[in-house]
Amino acid sequence: MPIPLLATVDPENLPIVLSGVLLSLVVIYLASKLGAEVAKNFDFPPVLGELVAGVIVGVSALHLIVFPEAGLSASDSGIMTVLQLINHLSPAAVTTIFESQSEVISVLAELGVIILLFEIGLESDLRQLKEVGIQAVVVACVGVAVPFVAGTAGLMIFFHTAAIPAVFAGAALTATSIGITSKVLSELGQLKSKEGQIIVGAAVIDDVLGIIVLAVVASLAKTGEIDVVNVIYLIVSATAFLLGSILLGGIFNKTFTAVVETLKTRGNIVIPAFTFAFFMAFLGNAIHLEAILGAFAAGLVLDESDTRNELDELVKPIADLLVPIFFVTVGARADLGVLNPAVPDNRAGLLIAGFLILVAIIGKLVTGWVVFGVPGINRLAIGVGMIPRGEVGLVFAGIGSASGVLDKPLEVSIIIMVILTTFLAPPFLRIAFGDSVEPPAIEESSKVI
Amino acid sequence: MPIPLLATVDPENLPIVLSGVLLSLVVIYLASKLGAEVAKNFDFPPVLGELVAGVIVGVSALHLIVFPEAGLSASDSGIMTVLQLINHLSPAAVTTIFESQSEVISVLAELGVIILLFEIGLESDLRQLKEVGIQAVVVACVGVAVPFVAGTAGLMIFFHTAAIPAVFAGAALTATSIGITSKVLSELGQLKSKEGQIIVGAAVIDDVLGIIVLAVVASLAKTGEIDVVNVIYLIVSATAFLLGSILLGGIFNKTFTAVVETLKTRGNIVIPAFTFAFFMAFLGNAIHLEAILGAFAAGLVLDESDTRNELDELVKPIADLLVPIFFVTVGARADLGVLNPAVPDNRAGLLIAGFLILVAIIGKLVTGWVVFGVPGINRLAIGVGMIPRGEVGLVFAGIGSASGVLDKPLEVSIIIMVILTTFLAPPFLRIAFGDSVEPPAIEESSKVI
Repeated sequence: MPIPLLATVDPENLPIVLSGVLLSLVVIYLASKLGAEVAKNFDFPPVLGELVAGVIVGVSALHLIVFPEAGLSASDSGIMTVLQLINHLSPAAVTTIFESQSEVISVLAELGVIILLFEIGLESDLRQLKEVGIQAVVVACVGVAVPFVAGTAGLMIFFHTAAIPAVFAGAALTATSIGITSKVLSELGQLKSKEGQIIVGAAVIDDVLGIIVLAVVASLAKTGEIDVVNVIYLIVSATAFLLGSILLGGIFNKTFTAVVETLKTRGNIVIPAFTFAFFMAFLGNAIHLEAILGAFAAGLVLDESDTRNELDELVKPIADLLVPIFFVTVGARADLGVLNPAVPDNRAGLLIAGFLILVAIIGKLVTGWVVFGVPGINRLAIGVGMIPRGEVGLVFAGIGSASGVLDKPLEVSIIIMVILTTFLAPPFLRIAFGDSVEPPAIEESSKVI
Repeated sequence: MPIPLLATVDPENLPIVLSGVLLSLVVIYLASKLGAEVAKNFDFPPVLGELVAGVIVGVSALHLIVFPEAGLSASDSGIMTVLQLINHLSPAAVTTIFESQSEVISVLAELGVIILLFEIGLESDLRQLKEVGIQAVVVACVGVAVPFVAGTAGLMIFFHTAAIPAVFAGAALTATSIGITSKVLSELGQLKSKEGQIIVGAAVIDDVLGIIVLAVVASLAKTGEIDVVNVIYLIVSATAFLLGSILLGGIFNKTFTAVVETLKTRGNIVIPAFTFAFFMAFLGNAIHLEAILGAFAAGLVLDESDTRNELDELVKPIADLLVPIFFVTVGARADLGVLNPAVPDNRAGLLIAGFLILVAIIGKLVTGWVVFGVPGINRLAIGVGMIPRGEVGLVFAGIGSASGVLDKPLEVSIIIMVILTTFLAPPFLRIAFGDSVEPPAIEESSKVI
């Protein structure tokens, strides 16, 4: 939906655009921290709080962070109202500045998700897979296939959704959040249990599969139709890109370590690492996959390098600063108004959300029963552990919405699905582990209310 | 110089804008690191190398990083040529994408300089001033007043420059670079000497004075004339803003520490610190001063907090990632073509550059001779130590150019002045200290060629 506008590129407006960006960032940071802390207090993952806080400051409620794609104008933006008060702007300047600052915030959010997936890549560990072995692979594949097929088919059959949005929504059901899952497991003291190992291993593979699925689906969305040759090209190129970068990664790792050791000025680790991550992200985009796939591959590669621990520490504050922009803006873009059941048109959206949640839960629960050769394993715990969708599900919603593939009810349904699966997983996981494993006395008892 | 253009805000273009931003960042990082390392190898400050590397990738040479303000179109941009090859864009889309990605890079550069001055604020230390006492204050004030008056008057009298550009260029001669000066001093093992203490103390005050001068001058540039009431308003508001934030800082410090201790989620230090820094930067802009003044004040305030050391470590990688964007783009915007003596119009520019360099050196050298009450002090070393201009001088050039106050010859003259004073200071400082103080044996001998 291109909106043609007479935009004036005026260097004098740059300080005002900067003001708008600074004020938006202040609002985003306040919302993200408040949301994260409230969620943490209620024992939910902080990322969930950031998302909900985004909904509150966004188009659904306070109208502080809004974007022109939604058909909103500058007068709908709280930030622009403040800038207007301070600077006495002409109506034309207001429109241009609103467009510009929204675009800058959008790109910052994109850089945020690129850095998030770079960090997830750094946290993922290929060697961990070998230990949990074939079990994790089976759980991951079933946990991707079942929700994807059931979700896509269900949407097309029961809701008469068009193929591409149905595939996109089905794909959004696939990826388990490694961040949320591993955090919840460690809070329960189950990270080192057999179940915990399988869940984390499967979540790692799931992440890779989910990103390949995302790349495939997002590219399909771009071409507008399901083109088998294109699907094969994408699967091959995504696999080749990931495997190729991991295989070449062995060589690059040594180069990277050598470069880092040669450099004597500030940023000797950060700059080479992000040059690589941004170049891989650019490459992912350039071969018509996704920038985040490149960033994830870059993270996997550098995870093997000698400077890995140092790099982890340096990436953290950068991620802390940029990643919340992504989560808050995803929430801010979601118009929960479409879920108001008083409006007849919205009822379909609510039904879809209910269906997606059902598929999301059942599609992952079944994975526990495909585990074989491990007697006495807690199958329920594994299934429940795979439920939270988190970051990657939101990436689907964000990209689907930005590319215009998802209509509002479907986008919001996905976000509601992500929120609910993430909400439900921590208490469910606690119940699933129940008496079968000794809880770590001190940590656990202090958390029981 | 507003350039009206029919811009199309098209969500489908966002991935391509992102590609452009990612590729620009890769070029900027490669240039900055190569430049910094080469400079370091020749024993010059790394920042100088980043600037020169910017000149090489910018409008003067490779045309990789160029900006539309210079009257260049998308076809002049190396990055856009690559994007065009990959994506088969329409001419209208090319123009829009070029504008958008240039604007994002410009805002990222602005965020870079905001973070740089936040970091300089964190590094500055109000208590240090008390130790070096009145000497540092006198050196700083003379070192600001003499180059400012001599530079402004000289430009108006000898070169018939208009009042506002002359004041701007004079102002660019004032601020000593605390980063470069203190780094050079520590390399010479002179940071703890009496001369070193006075230089660093004076450079700290100089930084504050320079930023007040910049705020005053930049605001003058906005209104277009020298309005005495406005000057007084600005001096009062800049002083009140800085002193007010420092005084209120005592209270805010405790609040900040309390907030940091309360927060339990990731980014518990980074997010509150940058929320404060960005809010202060916004406030600096909002009261019609400069964003960097707010960021510097925020740094001074948080410098006093209990979490200061931790914060320093967390800000470093963020600064390493964003600050080079500022230096490289400053270099990239500078069109050294105007200094080609074969073009008759350019000869005035070269004469101006020579004059500015002369004033820049002599105006700071004299400061050594105003020191009183310290018998046997090395006056030459103090004077030479104040010579490097570095960051703040470049900030003047960048803001002057962006706001259209400085014409190209004057802008380039300032950049040449900054480059040369920074180039000359390290060898001169070594000569000035000469035999008067024992050099630190190991470090020094390994550096002598």
